Amino acid sequence: MTFELQAQDPGSNARAGKVTTAHGVIETPIFMPVGTAATVKAVHQRELKEDIQAQIILGNTYHLYLRPGLDILEKAGGLHKFNGWDKPILTDSGGYQVFSLSGTRKIIEEGVKFKSHIDGSTHLFTPENVMDTQRTIGADIIMAFDECTPYPCEYDYAKNSMHRTHRWLKRCCERFDSTEGKYGFDQTLFPIVQGSTFRDLRTQSAEYIASMNREGNAIGGLSVGEPAEMMYEMTDLVCSILPKDKPRYLMGVGTPANILENIALGVDMFDCVLPTRNARNGMLFTTQGIINIRNQRWKDDFSPIDAELGGYTSTFYSKAYLRHLIHAQEYLAGMIASVHNLTFYLWLVKQAREQIKAGTFAAWKNVMVEKLMTRL
Amino acid sequence: MTFELQAQDPGSNARAGKVTTAHGVIETPIFMPVGTAATVKAVHQRELKEDIQAQIILGNTYHLYLRPGLDILEKAGGLHKFNGWDKPILTDSGGYQVFSLSGTRKIIEEGVKFKSHIDGSTHLFTPENVMDTQRTIGADIIMAFDECTPYPCEYDYAKNSMHRTHRWLKRCCERFDSTEGKYGFDQTLFPIVQGSTFRDLRTQSAEYIASMNREGNAIGGLSVGEPAEMMYEMTDLVCSILPKDKPRYLMGVGTPANILENIALGVDMFDCVLPTRNARNGMLFTTQGIINIRNQRWKDDFSPIDAELGGYTSTFYSKAYLRHLIHAQEYLAGMIASVHNLTFYLWLVKQAREQIKAGTFAAWKNVMVEKLMTRL
Repeated sequence: MTFELQAQDPGSNARAGKVTTAHGVIETPIFMPVGTAATVKAVHQRELKEDIQAQIILGNTYHLYLRPGLDILEKAGGLHKFNGWDKPILTDSGGYQVFSLSGTRKIIEEGVKFKSHIDGSTHLFTPENVMDTQRTIGADIIMAFDECTPYPCEYDYAKNSMHRTHRWLKRCCERFDSTEGKYGFDQTLFPIVQGSTFRDLRTQSAEYIASMNREGNAIGGLSVGEPAEMMYEMTDLVCSILPKDKPRYLMGVGTPANILENIALGVDMFDCVLPTRNARNGMLFTTQGIINIRNQRWKDDFSPIDAELGGYTSTFYSKAYLRHLIHAQEYLAGMIASVHNLTFYLWLVKQAREQIKAGTFAAWKNVMVEKLMTRL
Repeated sequence: MTFELQAQDPGSNARAGKVTTAHGVIETPIFMPVGTAATVKAVHQRELKEDIQAQIILGNTYHLYLRPGLDILEKAGGLHKFNGWDKPILTDSGGYQVFSLSGTRKIIEEGVKFKSHIDGSTHLFTPENVMDTQRTIGADIIMAFDECTPYPCEYDYAKNSMHRTHRWLKRCCERFDSTEGKYGFDQTLFPIVQGSTFRDLRTQSAEYIASMNREGNAIGGLSVGEPAEMMYEMTDLVCSILPKDKPRYLMGVGTPANILENIALGVDMFDCVLPTRNARNGMLFTTQGIINIRNQRWKDDFSPIDAELGGYTSTFYSKAYLRHLIHAQEYLAGMIASVHNLTFYLWLVKQAREQIKAGTFAAWKNVMVEKLMTRL
């Protein structure tokens, strides 16, 4: 994997870059739609590529490990072959799901014991086997096995957890560097900065992660309930330490405003379930602001969902039609809203990139943040 | 609406024809995907047109009347404008849903009183207001208000019901003929033959319906639980009476085999929820036979769903991937399976049409019926 820094905004720390992987190029800043169980929910692969214009999607190791399982993924020749998405894929380490989804889990130095949410069976994730698992899934970018601390979090817990995450990282790197991709293409490993919302821990973690000298770096443990200002403070601090010549991925973020603010702080990559999950509940992000399509006021608004955004889904279907579909609990409601919201997110980061390249990002960002968070 | 009889099969009563409506041409025999609540479940309008190649879809008056409601549909300019489907639409009369969905309904000479399954509110459907409702929905082909008798059905009940259906038909025609379309295009009214499974009643009903001299005719009250042979006997009888120069629509039918057998008896138009409903449960109709995609045997079958059928959905996604999606209860499972099954149904009637035009339908039908009903 290579990263080329193409432009830096004069009014902020925003950057435009180019990540090149075995499955193609990613122009940053970029948003990665979340494809939990080998599918971005309610979206066809063709729509993802042609309508949404996604450049990279995310897969969840925990879900894929449990179902369809590694035997099927390996027989298929990896996730790309299994689901037909031939552009870059990033997989998380499964740590986040193990901590949040599994009712009973036990953290030990070796790793984490947990029970499947599907059948209650017991499993153990270790830094080593999580590397092997992601090798088998066949993502282009794979993530280190870490603990994502909750918010709020006691200082001592955050400190101990961070040190364990660092020890686990060392084991991840050793395993990753002593193994090879299974399908004839290169994979790369991103380590993850932790440290909760404590400046000294974040500093220490960012320095440690930078010292590992991997091809890209991630920031974890944010967007877990802390105030947005606290998230920005941590991102700003960590970005000031992480190397400039490598991509920075802020995990699990966020709203359109969160994304623009974090781009301004120097983040290059994002993922979040927000656009698809909220879509299924009728919350639309548009170029004009936020729409709750369930509301009465849209019942006879026959204008397109978002004429300014463009694209088939956002211009073909009307607000009134989508409102009807969501009240009728029709499949098509989630399908339309998901494609629309993802189209919007990809449009947003593309606009940001153009503004960065033009050197006008900072001023544009301030106007956009206000506009995008307006409730229509 | 016009109908042109283009070819007749020498070995059966199968016909190929052309129905011309204000929203375009329908080549018969044809299958009409069911779009209950202004959407064919789990299918984008673009897929319906480009991938499935549907020529006409069906809307359900009962559902549309309750939600979004006639005020919204009228403000939109009719169902075509509301959901963006610009090809022909047929609406049923709502009778079937009133009888099957509504827990408490009361048949009186005036019409049927029923309670909404959504909010329990009380409504009355009469032959007159059902004509007005379908005028407002704006379908190209609208159906008479009838009673679809259950199976089995007492002779006396079937006889009385048939006579009421005939009386209602007269009122439907009077109302329809004294009103006009609301959106500047012509609509047409199809009457419906009833009579349960009694030969004398079916004969009497078919003769009465034929005497009304409408532009097309329908056969109702079949595919409600009776043996297939009994359905074919009734269809055969009714088709021998209905005029040859008008399209014949067999309501609510059926499996691929049912469709081919009824085409052989002289039916031109079909609709059924089977391809979409069964799709969502993992039952696929393919050119090689029937697949229950949930089964273990497909777990590592990475071949396309149906390579011979062609089309994006059936060839892009593999059986193993679709099996995974349905077990994971993903939206995409229903989406893929629905597009596939409808693509198959439209392919099937197109093949039938070509065989009829070539004069080879009868022999082809016998081979296909056996092949299509094989469980793989």
